[in-house]
Amino acid sequence: KINGERLWDSLMEMAKIGPGIAGGNNRQTLTDEDAEGRALFQRWCEAAGCSMGLDSMGNMFATRPGTDAEALPVYVGSHLDTQPTGGKYDGVLGVLGGLELVRTLNDLDVKTKHPIVVTNWTNEEGTRYAPAMLASGVFAGLHDEAWAKDRVDAEGKRFGDELKRIGWEGDEPVGARKMHAFFELHIEQGPILEAEGKDIGIVTHGQGLWWLEVTLTGKDAHTGSTPMNMRVNAGLGMARITELVHAIAMEAQPDAVGAIGQANVYPNSRNVIPGKAVFTIDFRSPDLEKLDGMRARLEAEAPKIAEDLGLGISIEPVGHFDPVTFDEGCVGALRDAAERLGYSHRDIVSGAGHDACWMNRVAPTAMVMCPCVDGLSHNEAEEITKDWAAAGADVLLHAVVETAVI
Amino acid sequence: KINGERLWDSLMEMAKIGPGIAGGNNRQTLTDEDAEGRALFQRWCEAAGCSMGLDSMGNMFATRPGTDAEALPVYVGSHLDTQPTGGKYDGVLGVLGGLELVRTLNDLDVKTKHPIVVTNWTNEEGTRYAPAMLASGVFAGLHDEAWAKDRVDAEGKRFGDELKRIGWEGDEPVGARKMHAFFELHIEQGPILEAEGKDIGIVTHGQGLWWLEVTLTGKDAHTGSTPMNMRVNAGLGMARITELVHAIAMEAQPDAVGAIGQANVYPNSRNVIPGKAVFTIDFRSPDLEKLDGMRARLEAEAPKIAEDLGLGISIEPVGHFDPVTFDEGCVGALRDAAERLGYSHRDIVSGAGHDACWMNRVAPTAMVMCPCVDGLSHNEAEEITKDWAAAGADVLLHAVVETAVI
Ligand SMILES: NC(=O)NCCC(=O)O
Ligand SMILES: NC(=O)NCCC(=O)O
Repeated sequence: KINGERLWDSLMEMAKIGPGIAGGNNRQTLTDEDAEGRALFQRWCEAAGCSMGLDSMGNMFATRPGTDAEALPVYVGSHLDTQPTGGKYDGVLGVLGGLELVRTLNDLDVKTKHPIVVTNWTNEEGTRYAPAMLASGVFAGLHDEAWAKDRVDAEGKRFGDELKRIGWEGDEPVGARKMHAFFELHIEQGPILEAEGKDIGIVTHGQGLWWLEVTLTGKDAHTGSTPMNMRVNAGLGMARITELVHAIAMEAQPDAVGAIGQANVYPNSRNVIPGKAVFTIDFRSPDLEKLDGMRARLEAEAPKIAEDLGLGISIEPVGHFDPVTFDEGCVGALRDAAERLGYSHRDIVSGAGHDACWMNRVAPTAMVMCPCVDGLSHNEAEEITKDWAAAGADVLLHAVVETAVI
Repeated sequence: KINGERLWDSLMEMAKIGPGIAGGNNRQTLTDEDAEGRALFQRWCEAAGCSMGLDSMGNMFATRPGTDAEALPVYVGSHLDTQPTGGKYDGVLGVLGGLELVRTLNDLDVKTKHPIVVTNWTNEEGTRYAPAMLASGVFAGLHDEAWAKDRVDAEGKRFGDELKRIGWEGDEPVGARKMHAFFELHIEQGPILEAEGKDIGIVTHGQGLWWLEVTLTGKDAHTGSTPMNMRVNAGLGMARITELVHAIAMEAQPDAVGAIGQANVYPNSRNVIPGKAVFTIDFRSPDLEKLDGMRARLEAEAPKIAEDLGLGISIEPVGHFDPVTFDEGCVGALRDAAERLGYSHRDIVSGAGHDACWMNRVAPTAMVMCPCVDGLSHNEAEEITKDWAAAGADVLLHAVVETAVI
């Protein structure tokens, strides 16, 4: 078993970097805080006898050598970046759980045939730079590296420039590494495990996603002196499409969700009718047909709403992944580990996207989840217990060792 | 008649300060650009033989002496601050039209019994600091000066601190001046005069206004892993209240308007269900009962929308004025001037709030308007013709002289 106290201490230590305003974290990708978190992780890995690799997307790879020079490594990991008002565990548990696994193997002086590599993937959250899981997506060949580096944040800063600025652009070509397998530990970010009193979720599938960025173009005008029938109000259009997104998701129940996370009107002045609105829609479902159906319905109906109001509209996909089915062997290894360790468990579908969803395309992959309080995530109040974290890391340890010894 | 070329040149010269991104202006109140615009206005006034007074709210008063030391001054003026994406004429025409009037009287060597004072009121727009017409409101005794100086902008900067920072806080006590009369020239900001081919609008009334700031409190949560029935989505609440505001205004037709100009969701991240939304409602009507009725209906129905969605709600008034009836004598002076000069004219109700609306409480006041293209204002594309500007300033000149000689 792993050392639950040591894992927890490391989680709390990492949470000191980029503190939020309400007990959580703001350690967004490619900020100074991200750089500081990376440096701490590197120090810890080196102290645990690992050598650090760094690729040109800033992905970090801490290697614990194996006994067979020919054997492909078993990879574990997740991400250290957070939402602007994020929690202390989303992503971080998977990275530090991997580190704890290495530390435990060191304590027990266990050697594995396959090397074990603990990974920190750059920009998993996708908040500052869309799409989410950007750097693992480049690694898995989903995105072109040059395209990824050209992504800009809300202030117009390029991903590539910011990666250089914080000093974490490596020399290693992205995606050159081959994997024996990939495992990711993550908090559930949903309410099921806690509600059912389960210690462990064995992730068999992941939901698919469409992110659509909508731009509505109306006419800035005075809120007082412009008659109602002369208005071309982009804010009103955004409101109607927000309601449409909700209706589409509700009618696709169960196994579908939809919401608008980012919403901006321009010029955003009390006495100006918004002449422009830009917002992003997030549709998800584990069912590909349903997922594509939600997008299709939005693309059919939103332009009618715009037309009614005299608004111009553009709808652009800014993120996408298909539903994922994880590798049976890896899923089985995790399920066996949970069983063997005596943890209560159930199979579960991941509601969120994860780096593991991309790794699944290039290597046998699976994920293990622990519960989180109230199913709350992407919120500074995100919380887990020390025991939940330890159970998740235990299952990870056993599945990884199982996979790495033979 | 005034010198239309000179007026136009001054308008174009002022527009060089704080240029916008699409041909208009961004010279928001208490910015460095505001300071620069003030300095230019002061140089022009002094070159025209006026002495400049400055009160502790930053209101500027350029005095052309009269022949009778006892006679109260006739005031003219408006504001030099603009919207973030504003036009070149909103407010500026009234200030520089006043200056042109002084320059014309100098050219003609006309003396008046009453001094003439050209005024630039601080923060008319109300975008950076709510409410609008803030400093003229303090002058007229509507607001307390200390309260006004404590207003904060979106970045938390205090009005009082920013006024000091740009170097335009004067020593003169606010509201100490007594006025013989106040006249304001302004662009219509609506479509009526242009549509009817009228040169001049004689403003007999002004609409009343309620600005309500609504805060909805839900729960930040993951857009992917949070089931639909567990969401407390503040963005959805904002959408429904946006639709309600529109419905309330439409049902109050004619002579009523309503819209949401400022709209923000938090944390404004693609994969976070908004846990908070803050937005401002702008309701207006020339009919007091209707105006108050719109507010009352909003305050009755919005909480039901919030309750349905499990959201907390607070509704706070952040701006208000009652409908205004301007002084018959001043209105008559403007109408007579238009008639005498041979300009086509009609009586009109101002859709926007103006500094004149507050002056009307402390002095005989009226306003004159010129058309603007497409009724467009609070938009960088705001446009007027040289002739329209000149006609408005001519009417202003005649009414002011008429009032100032006797
Ligand atoms: N796990 C997680 O929050 N990933 C971010 C991408 C997503 O929105 O699913
Ligand atoms: N004239 C003008 O745009 N004033 C700003 C205050 C308002 O919104 O009416």
